[in-house]
Order: sequence, then C-alpha cells, then structure tokens
Amino acid sequence: MREGQILFTYLHLAAAQELGAELVKRKVSGVAYETIETDDRRLPLLTPMSAVAGRMSVQAGASFLEKERGGKGILLGGVPGVRRGRVCIIGGGVVGANAARMAIGLGARVTVLDINQDVLTYLDDIYEGRIHTLYSDPFTVEAAVAKADLVIGAVLVAGARAPRLVTEAMIRNMEPGSVIVDVAVDQGGCVETCRPTTHEDPTYLVHGVIHYCVANMPGAVPRTSTFALANATMPYVKALAQKGLEKAAADDPVMARGVNTYRGGVTHPAVAEALGQPYTPLSV
Amino acid sequence: MREGQILFTYLHLAAAQELGAELVKRKVSGVAYETIETDDRRLPLLTPMSAVAGRMSVQAGASFLEKERGGKGILLGGVPGVRRGRVCIIGGGVVGANAARMAIGLGARVTVLDINQDVLTYLDDIYEGRIHTLYSDPFTVEAAVAKADLVIGAVLVAGARAPRLVTEAMIRNMEPGSVIVDVAVDQGGCVETCRPTTHEDPTYLVHGVIHYCVANMPGAVPRTSTFALANATMPYVKALAQKGLEKAAADDPVMARGVNTYRGGVTHPAVAEALGQPYTPLSV
Amino acid sequence: MREGQILFTYLHLAAAQELGAELVKRKVSGVAYETIETDDRRLPLLTPMSAVAGRMSVQAGASFLEKERGGKGILLGGVPGVRRGRVCIIGGGVVGANAARMAIGLGARVTVLDINQDVLTYLDDIYEGRIHTLYSDPFTVEAAVAKADLVIGAVLVAGARAPRLVTEAMIRNMEPGSVIVDVAVDQGGCVETCRPTTHEDPTYLVHGVIHYCVANMPGAVPRTSTFALANATMPYVKALAQKGLEKAAADDPVMARGVNTYRGGVTHPAVAEALGQPYTPLSV
Amino acid sequence: MREGQILFTYLHLAAAQELGAELVKRKVSGVAYETIETDDRRLPLLTPMSAVAGRMSVQAGASFLEKERGGKGILLGGVPGVRRGRVCIIGGGVVGANAARMAIGLGARVTVLDINQDVLTYLDDIYEGRIHTLYSDPFTVEAAVAKADLVIGAVLVAGARAPRLVTEAMIRNMEPGSVIVDVAVDQGGCVETCRPTTHEDPTYLVHGVIHYCVANMPGAVPRTSTFALANATMPYVKALAQKGLEKAAADDPVMARGVNTYRGGVTHPAVAEALGQPYTPLSV
Amino acid sequence: MREGQILFTYLHLAAAQELGAELVKRKVSGVAYETIETDDRRLPLLTPMSAVAGRMSVQAGASFLEKERGGKGILLGGVPGVRRGRVCIIGGGVVGANAARMAIGLGARVTVLDINQDVLTYLDDIYEGRIHTLYSDPFTVEAAVAKADLVIGAVLVAGARAPRLVTEAMIRNMEPGSVIVDVAVDQGGCVETCRPTTHEDPTYLVHGVIHYCVANMPGAVPRTSTFALANATMPYVKALAQKGLEKAAADDPVMARGVNTYRGGVTHPAVAEALGQPYTPLSV
Amino acid sequence: MREGQILFTYLHLAAAQELGAELVKRKVSGVAYETIETDDRRLPLLTPMSAVAGRMSVQAGASFLEKERGGKGILLGGVPGVRRGRVCIIGGGVVGANAARMAIGLGARVTVLDINQDVLTYLDDIYEGRIHTLYSDPFTVEAAVAKADLVIGAVLVAGARAPRLVTEAMIRNMEPGSVIVDVAVDQGGCVETCRPTTHEDPTYLVHGVIHYCVANMPGAVPRTSTFALANATMPYVKALAQKGLEKAAADDPVMARGVNTYRGGVTHPAVAEALGQPYTPLSV
Repeated sequence: MREGQILFTYLHLAAAQELGAELVKRKVSGVAYETIETDDRRLPLLTPMSAVAGRMSVQAGASFLEKERGGKGILLGGVPGVRRGRVCIIGGGVVGANAARMAIGLGARVTVLDINQDVLTYLDDIYEGRIHTLYSDPFTVEAAVAKADLVIGAVLVAGARAPRLVTEAMIRNMEPGSVIVDVAVDQGGCVETCRPTTHEDPTYLVHGVIHYCVANMPGAVPRTSTFALANATMPYVKALAQKGLEKAAADDPVMARGVNTYRGGVTHPAVAEALGQPYTPLSV
Repeated sequence: MREGQILFTYLHLAAAQELGAELVKRKVSGVAYETIETDDRRLPLLTPMSAVAGRMSVQAGASFLEKERGGKGILLGGVPGVRRGRVCIIGGGVVGANAARMAIGLGARVTVLDINQDVLTYLDDIYEGRIHTLYSDPFTVEAAVAKADLVIGAVLVAGARAPRLVTEAMIRNMEPGSVIVDVAVDQGGCVETCRPTTHEDPTYLVHGVIHYCVANMPGAVPRTSTFALANATMPYVKALAQKGLEKAAADDPVMARGVNTYRGGVTHPAVAEALGQPYTPLSV
Repeated sequence: MREGQILFTYLHLAAAQELGAELVKRKVSGVAYETIETDDRRLPLLTPMSAVAGRMSVQAGASFLEKERGGKGILLGGVPGVRRGRVCIIGGGVVGANAARMAIGLGARVTVLDINQDVLTYLDDIYEGRIHTLYSDPFTVEAAVAKADLVIGAVLVAGARAPRLVTEAMIRNMEPGSVIVDVAVDQGGCVETCRPTTHEDPTYLVHGVIHYCVANMPGAVPRTSTFALANATMPYVKALAQKGLEKAAADDPVMARGVNTYRGGVTHPAVAEALGQPYTPLSV
Repeated sequence: MREGQILFTYLHLAAAQELGAELVKRKVSGVAYETIETDDRRLPLLTPMSAVAGRMSVQAGASFLEKERGGKGILLGGVPGVRRGRVCIIGGGVVGANAARMAIGLGARVTVLDINQDVLTYLDDIYEGRIHTLYSDPFTVEAAVAKADLVIGAVLVAGARAPRLVTEAMIRNMEPGSVIVDVAVDQGGCVETCRPTTHEDPTYLVHGVIHYCVANMPGAVPRTSTFALANATMPYVKALAQKGLEKAAADDPVMARGVNTYRGGVTHPAVAEALGQPYTPLSV
Repeated sequence: MREGQILFTYLHLAAAQELGAELVKRKVSGVAYETIETDDRRLPLLTPMSAVAGRMSVQAGASFLEKERGGKGILLGGVPGVRRGRVCIIGGGVVGANAARMAIGLGARVTVLDINQDVLTYLDDIYEGRIHTLYSDPFTVEAAVAKADLVIGAVLVAGARAPRLVTEAMIRNMEPGSVIVDVAVDQGGCVETCRPTTHEDPTYLVHGVIHYCVANMPGAVPRTSTFALANATMPYVKALAQKGLEKAAADDPVMARGVNTYRGGVTHPAVAEALGQPYTPLSV
Repeated sequence: MREGQILFTYLHLAAAQELGAELVKRKVSGVAYETIETDDRRLPLLTPMSAVAGRMSVQAGASFLEKERGGKGILLGGVPGVRRGRVCIIGGGVVGANAARMAIGLGARVTVLDINQDVLTYLDDIYEGRIHTLYSDPFTVEAAVAKADLVIGAVLVAGARAPRLVTEAMIRNMEPGSVIVDVAVDQGGCVETCRPTTHEDPTYLVHGVIHYCVANMPGAVPRTSTFALANATMPYVKALAQKGLEKAAADDPVMARGVNTYRGGVTHPAVAEALGQPYTPLSV
C-alpha cells in the first residue's frame, strides 16, 4: 500500500507490531474495526461478531453434549418429564445475551451471571420467567458452574485481557462429560483451563470436561458472519468513500477513534503504547 | 324436603350417612355435584373449585414465605440478580396446572411432577421454557421437595383418598421456613404431615416447615368462587328446571351419574356401598 | 466513629438531624445510599429496594383481598369464565413496573398510569397486550381508581415528598373491600388517606377500603432484599475499599454525589439545606 | 348431471328445495360439505370458512371504526397512554377464537363470552392474560356489549338458527359509532338487529351503531379462502376419486353423513324432513 | 393574535411562508410542535402521530387487500395450512415499529428493513422469532418488496424529504393487487410512485399495485389521536402556562428548540433559512 | 428365556423373524413396545423416542450447516439484520412438533407441512406467529424444500413404510450445502435419497446436499432418552409386575395390543402376517 491509502479492517496492531511498523513507514491510514468506539463505549464493529459467536456457542455446546462427541449424552431441552440441561452463562453482554437466547430457545434452564444490574434487569424483562439472573461473584460463579451441563464463558472487557472468572478448581467440580465453551478465548479466555483451538480440532478434555475454545467461532458460518459484518461496516465505508478520511474523522468522533495510523504517526494512544511509539493525536 | 323434590348441591353422602339416610327416607332426589362425571372421567362441578384452589395456593404460599408470617423471608420471583424461589408442584391436574400458572406469573422457578405424560407435554407446550416437568416417582419427589421453597400438594384422585406422596422424612429435609400448601387436604392430604386447618388459624409448623392446609381454600375468595361454581352448575340447573330430573337424566348420562338417591333408593353404586345400602340402578 | 472513618449506608440526614450533627462533629465521612445518583438521575442503591417493594405490593394486595383478611373476596386472576381482578398502578417507574409484572403474572387486568411517555411505551412493548397504559391526569386517575379492586401507589419523586395523586374523594368512590397498597408511604404517600403502618399491624380501613401502608415492605423478605442490596452496593464498597473515599469520589461523580459529610463539612447541597448548615462543596 | 354422478359441494338443500328435487329426480349423488360431520360433532368443511370469517371480522370492524367510514374514530390497539378499544366476542368456537386472535393481535382489550367451560379454559391457557373470558348469560352479555367498541357475533349452532343473544335493547345502550359484525348472519344472525348485507354495501346503522353483516365474508379474500377450503376437502375428494362413493361412505361414517341424496332417495334425515321427502337410510 | 401571545401548535412555517411572515409582523411567539426536539434528536410531539399512523397503516393495508377493494384477496394472517401474507416494512423507527406490531398481531410474515443496527436488535429482542430484520440496502429492499403482499413505507428523516427507497421499477415487480401504504407521504413519500391522497379517495393504482397514500392518516381515528397528542403536549402546555414562555425556554432547551418566532425575530435557524429571513438566536 | 417368562421391550418381529420364531417355540410372552397402542391410535412407547429424535434433528441440522462440517455456513437464527435460516419440516406429529419447537427456539423461519388440519391448527395456536403452517401436497412440499436451508423429514405412519414425500428431483433443486435430516429413516425414510447412517459416520452428500440419516438418533443422548423411555414404560411395567400379564392384558386393551406372542401363538395380526404364522387371538 502507498501513502494516503486507507486500510479499513481488523488490525489488532498491538499483537501485530510488524504490520504497525509498516503502516507507519508507508504512511498508510490504518483504520481499525476494533477501535471504532461510540461515546457510550460500545464497539459497533465487534458487536456483530459477538452476536454470531454467542448464538453459535450454545449450538456447539449442545452438539458436544452428545455421547458420540464425548459429552454426557443429554439433550439441552430435555423432553417433558425428563430434566432439562442447565446452561450457565458467565457475562450478559452481547455474547452472553445472544447465547442466552439460543439456550432458552432450545429449552434449557438458563442462568446468566453479570455484575451490571441494568443488563440483568433487561434480560429479566424480555425473557419473563425463562431466565435466571444472578449477580456475579466468585461464590455464585462456583455454585452455578458446579451444577451446569454447559458453561458459556462470555466475559469480554473492551481492550483488555478477559478476567479468569472460572478457575480450574471450579472445572474440577463439574460432572464429567459437561461442556465449556469459552467465547472469550480470543482475549485469553475467561476460563482458567482454556487455550485456543481450531475448527478442525475444536475440543480437548480437562478433568473430564470438554473444552470448546475455537478462536474464531464466527468463521464456521461465514455467510451469516460476512453479511453481519458488512452491515455494520457499511456506514463507515460510505463515509470514507464519500468524504475521505479527513472529513469523515472530523465529522464523527466515533470514526476518529478508529484511526490508528495516519501520515506516519500513531494516532491512537493505546496502540501507540503497545507499539512503543510516540502518540500523535489525530489532527485532520 | 318432600318426596320428589330435588336437592342439587355437594352431598358427599359417604361422609354424611345421616343425610343419606334422610334423603332415602324422604324419597328426595339427591343429585350430587361431586358425582356428576363426564364420559372421559372428568368432574365438571369440581373443576372450578380446583381451579380457584390451585390459583390461591401459590398466593397463600408466597404470603407465608414472608418473615413476619414465619417464612424464610424470600420473594418468590426474586429480583434481577437474586435467586428466584423454587416452587415444586406435586400433580399437574386442574389444581396443579392452575398453581403452576400463578407460580410462573410470580416469576418463580417451577417444577411440576406428574405421571401422566400428556399432562406434562401440554404444560411444556404452553409454558415454553418457563416450567420444568418431571415424571413423578419417589426419588424425583424427594429431590424436588428437598430443594423447594414452596411445595404445593396437588394430587387428587377422583373418589379416593389422596396418595401420600410427600413423606415426613422429605419434610424433614426441607429448609426451615419453607412452606407447604396441601390442596388435597380435603381428601386426606398428599403430604404425610398434613391435617386440616381453617382460615382463622391456617398454619402450623412441622420440622420448621410451615404447613398451610386450609380445608376450604376457595372460601377465602367467595365472589370469585361463587361465580365459578354457578357458571359450572348452570347447564345442569337449566336441564333440571326445564326437563325435570327424569328426562334430564335420561337424556344425559353425565347428569344421570350425579343422581345419588331417587324415590327411596340409592342410585349410585359407590355411594350405596359407602352407606351400606342396596344399590338401585337409576331407571327414569 | 472517629474522624476519617467512612459510614456507608442509608443516612436520610434530612430526617435525622442529630445524626447529621454528630457526623459533622466527629468529622466522619458520611456516604449515603440514597444520594448516590447517576448522571441520568437514577438512584442505583434505591432501585433494588424499589424492585422488591413493587413485587411484594401485589402479593400483599392479593392476600388482603381475601375475605378472611377483610377484602372483598376475589381472586386477582379470576378463573376462566369469571371476571379477573382490576389492578390500577399509579406510576410506572421501578416500583410500578415491578408491581405490574406481578399483577400480570397473577392474571389480573392491569392499568398503569404515568406521565412519562417513554415509560408507557416500554411497558407496552414488553407486555404486548397484557397491560393497559394510560397517561396520568386527575381524571384518568379518578376513573381508574374507582373501578380498581387493588390500587398500588407507586409514585416516588427523587428527594421530594410523593405527590398526593389519589385523593380521599377517590377512595370514597371505591368499592368496600378493595385494597390500596401505598409503596410511597416512606415519602409521605401518594394516597391522601395513607399513614405508615408496620408488618405487625399492616392495615387499617378508610371508607371501607383496606389500606396497606407498611413503611418498610422489603423487610418482609430479608433474604431477597439483603442480596439485592448487597449486589447493588458491592461496586461502591469495592471502590471505597480499594481506592479510599477521596480517590473513589474523584474518579466517579456518581460516588461523589453520595458524600453527605466530609471532614466536618456538609458536602451535599440538599442535605446542607435540610440541616440548616453551610454547604461545603466536596473537594477531594 | 346424470345418474350416478357425484355432486360434492355446499348444497344447503333445506334452503334450495328445487335443487334437492332435481338431484333426487336425476338420481345424482349429492354429497354436501355442510353435513360432513365427525363423531365428535365437528364440521370439518365448515371450519376453514369459519376461521377465515373470524379473522376477517375484526379487520372489518377495525376498519369501520374509522371516522370516515362512520365509526367513532378510535384505533383498536390505542397507543401507549391512550385507552385501547374494547372488543366483545360472543361465542368462543372457531369463529370466536379466530376473531379473538386478531383482536388480541391488534392490541385491543378482548372479552370472549361462551357457556362452554373447556372453550374458555383453552383460550385462557393459550392467551395468558391477554384475554378476558366470561361465562355467557344475558346479564354478562348486556354489560359487555354496553362497554364495547366492537362486538363480534360468533355464535353458530350446527344445523340450527343462531340464537339471538344480543337484543335491540342492548344495541341501543352502545355508544354511537360503535361497530357490530355478525358472523352468524348466514344462519339468521345472533344479533337481533342484523340482516344480511353484501360486500358492495356492507353496513347500515341502527341506533347509531354500525352493522356489518356481510353474508359471505370469506368471499372478500378468495385466495386465502379457496386454499383453505381445498385443503379441507382434499381428503374427501381423494377418497371419492379413489374408492368411489359407495366404498368411501362404507369405510368412513364421516363421509357417509355427507351423502344427502343417493339413487333417488334422500339419505340424510334432517334434509329429508326439510324437503318433505321420505328419509331413505344410506345403504352402500 | 397580538404581540406576546403564544401560538403553540404544528406550524410547519417552511411550507407556510405567509403564516410565518404574519407571526413575525405581529410579534407572536410561535412555538412549533414539530421543532420541539430532545437532546438525543427525538421529536416527542411527532411521536404520538407516528405511532397512530404506523398502527393504522397495516389495518388500512389489510383492508385494501380484500378483493372488493381491489386487492389480491388474501388475508394477512392466512389460516392454518394456508400461506400467510408477507408484509415488508421499510424503516424501523416509530412508524415502522408500530406497523410491525400490528402486522405481527394479524399473523403476517413480517420483514423490517433499516440501517440502524440498534433498532433491528431491539425489534429482534422483543418479538423473538416473530419478525425478520434485514439491513436495508437497495438489493434487499428490491428483493423484499418483490415478494411482499403489503409494503409499508415508514422512512422519515427529521426535517428532510423522505428518501425514495422504493423505486417505480420495484413497484413494477410486485404482484398485481398488492398494496403499498406510504406513511411518509407527508414528507414527499419514500416510494417513488406515491402522491398524497385523502380519506375520501384514499387509493389509486400504479402497475396494478394499490397505492394508499393518505396524507393525514391519524385523522381517521381522531379520538385516539387527540388523546395521544394531548398527552404528549401536556407537559409543555403546563410549562408555558405556569412559567411563561421565557422561563420555560430558559429552563428547558427542548422547549427552546420549539420557539420559531419571538418578538418579531425568527429564532430557529432552519425556519429562518426557509423563510429567507435573518436568524435571531433566542435570548430569553 | 423359558415358557411363561415375559419379554417386554422393542421387538420389531416383522424385521426379526428368527427372534419371532424363537419366542413362539419357547412359549415366551413377547410384549412389544411398538405395538402398545391407545384407542385413539397413539403409540405411547414410541412417543418419547420421537420427541427426543425431533428435538435432536434440528440441533444436528444446525451443526452440519457449519462450513467446517460441509454446510453452507449459515446460522439458523441469523443475527439482527441478516436473514435467518429456513427450516422446512415435513410432518407435524410428535417428531415434527418437537423439531419445530427447537427450530423456532433457535430463531429460524419455520414451515411445517402436514395434511392434518387439527395438527396445523394446534401448532398455529401455541406458536402464534412464529410458525408457518402449510397443507402438504406435492407442490407445496416441492416449493418449501427448494427454499429451505434445512429439511426435516418427520413423516411416520404407524406400522407402515414412511411415504417418500421428498423426491430426488426436489433434492436436486436445493442449494448446495443445505442439510436434510430424515428422522423417518428407521422406517425407510420419507426422503427418496435417504439411507441409514450411523453416529460414527452420520452424513453423505447427494447433489451437494448433506444427508444426515442416523438410524437411532436418540442414542446420542442416552441419559435423556433412557429417562424418557423409562417414564413411558413405567405404568406398563408396574401393571405386569403387580398383576401378571394375563390380568394386565385383560384389564387394559392398550396393554393387550402389545402382546405379540403368547403360549406359542402369535397374538398380533400384523405380526402374524409378517411372520407367516397363523394369528391366534389373545385370550387371557
């Protein structure tokens, strides 16, 4: 790429120092999906992937609960007269809320833990009696995990390592053949025993518990994911195409926060720090 | 009353021998609400009282879970972030289904146990994910009762003593301050430790568990109950008034089954047996 | 307590002048739950108690509609074929919305009155056809109260006396045996005829209408309330413990609004006015 | 048509004596949709038309409540903060249940009156709190009609004149600009003031109340109606085509009940009586 | 009117230059419903009319799908076994969301297109599986319109001409007898072939497709609309009456944005531009 | 086994002639789960396995729509703004209804085809607007299959080969990467291109369409299946144990229909025919 050209995609420069250096050197305008951030701190270009991953997580978990795939051989929804599966979802953000919807839909007993009271209240409002919400602390997490057939790790903290809320000791308490899906694995995982896997070899066992930790879950449903991402990026693409980067960033601070490199400078403070380069505030 | 007059109400002659003898002696036509029975063995004049009692049972239970009334001080629906109360309903018939609806409505975690698969399937169908249905056997009853904050005894067997499905040992396993409401108490109760109480003094304690066993629960809401009963009896009253007993019974076997005494004979086999009188088949 | 120590609880200094004076004298840092206020004017440490009180209010009301407890003897949900009870909820905030959920759950006909169009729209959205929302003005209140079996007073205005929207004249129009639960009684009540009662003697009659005005309703379900409150206070407790008051207040204006007394000064303007003391802006 | 040929359609011979005579004379096998009757007395070839008519009735009623079409100018669903329209449905059978679904869907306050407790219970079950069911008697009908914005007459009695449950006096009590849709008009109407109208001139006024009494409501949506009817008749058409009338009727009493004329005889007792012809039991 | 008097209503001065000039000349304080605007850019005095229009649009569309009114003769909800109607709603704002609710209620297959991801997510949340949401672009609009039985044009852009998202070519692809309701017709319409009609002569045909483009839809249900509007304006009327315009505008920027003319100056920039008059910032 | 002993399990003697011969020779009483049949022709001991298989079918189908498993890479529920997957379920009996519930729960667009109007009406009743029901004929099947992402074959005819409603030509019209799950494969399959597979190698491709035809689907979730089956068989086991075969069969014709062999005779007509043995009516 050449000077002045715009690269608009997931950049993750903190984990791709060479790419960062090259963008700076070539004076490419690097606009990163993952740092496009609204005033109320949402990340609109991560949201669609989180929604897909959250919905997929329960589908994957249900599948690995089957006997042939190593699971304890239960159906999440049970059938009338037979106990339903218990799904414990750690975190009620975009990932967790989408996971909850699928788990409820499959007829499971669903518990969502979070520390944000507004999140719990909204879930309680719209799922009237089909969901159990609990304030998350180490004791409730421990108790909920111990009884769960399926645990969904859905705690992501924007721009930070996911906190390890589910410890190995908790895993050890789970019934063999239970399943853990850690959607936060891209950010280090919120389950202590998790390490990234691939769609080719998606699971491994720890203490008899199946761990599904595919790093790029939405990759399994590319048709859905691609449309979801395209819908989300479209307004920004249009703004860049119609106005150019300068005016687009000047008009919209959300866009401006996405600019990581510009005319040879690193224009995002956290990225600058990660790259060990000086931070040059964006002036367009 | 005089010969040929019709007495149409709850008679319960098996438990009222003197009344039975008098009806026979006076040749009164005694038509009993409780033996009006359809071809598929439903009891349409007991149904409305069962519906009222079922709905009331949860309301009463919720109330006695309050601290001031001796309960463990929990709110059945919890609030977002705090665990919901667990309601265990033994029996999914008219009483149990109505209790389930109220418990779901108050936001509790509801488990219904029954041995009739069709009953469980229908509840599972209409409450999609807001109810847990379990096949009833001593082990599932024991486990469900042990965890419950509120147990509703809702097992009634038409014309028979209610089976004692909840034993004293199970009660002993419950947490102190939990509540049991036995709607079957009129028929002897389906909970071993139950004995009838009154609206004036509705509860007593066994092993720290509050027992609410008011024998005539619908009596607490007479406006609702009276209309409910009147609606149910109306078609039979009309038939008796318009056709007379003879033609009404001849036209409709459901009505005929309600006739307990007629022209000095006992015309219902079970009643005859209970009264120790000969059984005279109804011929009208 | 000694200088520098932090007292973090409900303080209500305006109604506890002596306590206020003492905190000032001893230079205690008084942080009041009730003045912790978000930028959009919500009171997060009052919310959980309001949710509990709202949910309890309908349960209490349903209970006092029973004949033995003095009520008109109706079941809120009716049964099929018999009219359902009518619940009129004055105010659609946290208390009212939680009351509405329980009333809907018990099968009542529910009307919520409020002047906030967004509040009415949200309730209309999530309860699709199970709730009736009305813009509150004296005429609609009067009409709705006159027909109600159960009125829930749920109008609270942050930091002010509750407005008396339900007048004695309206109460006189109600059917005898109807029930009023005034959740706003702690703030003077939004029903003209209300005065505080206790859990021991919770009700009294005015014009034949049962008044339930227990001042501390959540006290009846302490297990639920305690967890609810602990969940809500936890983030603030953590901040105080980890950062100390000064940094916690400096970092977070929500916390800062909670500080009523600090180093011998009164640091909350409304509290200062109520105590007749000078207002010392917090500087940490 | 010639001897032995089968005419399979709506015949309504009681009201078409000439046609009946001709079928007998020509020895045509007349199989009437309207007398195909199951063992439990349902009329499967009338059901689809009843479903269509029931669903249309509310749509038509809502439309005529508009000011320009003469109505009182209200929207059935209201909007948040404004009262919803009241729909009173007399009869909870196929017509009434389908009307109820649409009225609920449009957000109205819906009351269904019927004397069949099972019908009311099923509606109460599936519409949980979005419907009000009342046992039908003259007093409840009168009260419900008086308050209604839209009354749907949905009482049909198989093979009989619809009973006139809504009297002219009740109509006089309604607010001007209210609407009545009498779906039973084909059978004489269940509203005293009703007389058949056409799609070209569908309404007229009595006491200021708009009467919509189109005799063939499903005719307005022929694409939907035709498919609905074809689906219902298909199994009978197949049986007739594959087995011939004789074997089809011999195999299936439901089919046999549909045969009105056969080899010059009238083979349905009610039809024979209506035509003043001897009844010849079908022997195939 | 005289100097200092306040005219508080819909003014639409940009389209009523003469009125604007007169208000300026007479020094009337013109406060326009349509420019009362909240900080987050909502228009609270347009919202109630949009809600009414959205709800009415589906009712009107369903009605014109009837054969006698020129439509293709289908019932939106179908009946069991017969395909349901397809409703395509362009825009998910207040109009579209209200239209969606009615279309869902009538049992149609509903697709809502919008470019605002939050709008789509909220609709997906509350209508769980009863709605299909699609990101709006020319291709999805084209595909959705081509299959629709009823298209609702619900794209309004505050203060601007509605964008023409549905082209004549798309209309040509629709099946004859389909219906288009363009709620945006007041703002020029979001359908290329739309021009305003009246309640007296509400529709016309283009390419066999029925166009319903009544400019003032809420006028058909004045009782509902009047209350809706009164509820919304009430707080502003109260503020004007109690405080006078000057203090009301000083206290509340939302109110201030509504002031179009004041003491002979034009105090709203867009109105000033439209009237070709100098813009005089409001100073009260 | 010896004479007089009872073998109570799935027998499927028609497909296990040797076993049949042996039971006859040894005079074992063979009571077959699959011929236990109620008066209204339901098969209560097949129902639980059908429920499990129906629920699993959608879970399996969703899983094989993932790219890595060969599917077209879509998520059944889509996400807001992206089209949902289309699931076409052929047959609305126990299997189909359970499949529908899961597909609805996962957020798919669900179409169920059946020829039983009552089945379609019940599904329409309980899933209000979340399901599309169509009368099944070759044309609607063809159209529905062509557009589907996932087809569930759920047509089972008691005691007969499943009809081949989905032809190879229809499969050829499906989009590559679509998935077919034929739950009827045990009975020969209702899809022309289906042949039984195993959990080890569950799928194969025909015309690019993934075929999942595992013969014993409930085997994948043995914990759920075993309880489901035990619940269903329990009442029969109890009757056999408490009364002996003779009295159990004499008391209950449902049980009697289950007796295939008794004292050396073949006591079920269809089984006798299949085994080429004389039919000996059961006389106990």
